[in-house]
Amino acid sequence: TTMKYTPINLQEKFSKFTAQWEPKIVAKMNDYHLKLARIQGDFTWHSHPKTDETFIVVEGAMRIDFRDGTVTLQEGEMFVVPKGAEHKPYAEKECRIILIEPAGTTNTGDAGGEKTAQDNAWV
Amino acid sequence: TTMKYTPINLQEKFSKFTAQWEPKIVAKMNDYHLKLARIQGDFTWHSHPKTDETFIVVEGAMRIDFRDGTVTLQEGEMFVVPKGAEHKPYAEKECRIILIEPAGTTNTGDAGGEKTAQDNAWV
Repeated sequence: TTMKYTPINLQEKFSKFTAQWEPKIVAKMNDYHLKLARIQGDFTWHSHPKTDETFIVVEGAMRIDFRDGTVTLQEGEMFVVPKGAEHKPYAEKECRIILIEPAGTTNTGDAGGEKTAQDNAWV
Repeated sequence: TTMKYTPINLQEKFSKFTAQWEPKIVAKMNDYHLKLARIQGDFTWHSHPKTDETFIVVEGAMRIDFRDGTVTLQEGEMFVVPKGAEHKPYAEKECRIILIEPAGTTNTGDAGGEKTAQDNAWV
């Protein structure tokens, strides 16, 4: 038998949702999830006490503020937020990103609040 | 004090090496490495008995052959090769990819051979 192997097309996956700050899972690698998110405006200050978190910008630009500095990411740039580091993502215009983190990682980390999204939504 | 946080620019990192089939680490996330690779031609049939392996195409196109099928990835497409699945990457023209896998994962997996690259080279 021949298996059908299907590529995961990032733009096609982005076209299937419009909500901002609601990461959608597109793939599982071991116990990690690769997620897509549309972000715009200010997110909540938070940290992930148990894990690093990878951001890759697919389209647009974003900034990640830390308590002691900031990093701006353009399309084709990435950054790994260290475990436990308080951070606040921000994007002036809508930005499309890939997030990579362990399955079950919540977007608002230790902070909770109204911006907390499902951590198990696939697209 | 203000920390200096530096984005990782994928094209800038690619500009720093030309060797094909020699993945270069650009970031560490927990016990995983994010690597960049330039690939062209046929790689070795191999599997990774202990881990899945993520491929994301940044530029160009590639194919991953399996014993029972194949998947073609264009720019902006990704695929997770399941743990233990025998596979052979291939690219007609040079293709630039991101690889994500646990630190210490060897490019030729269980197969070894002359295409085996260092698993700890940063760029």
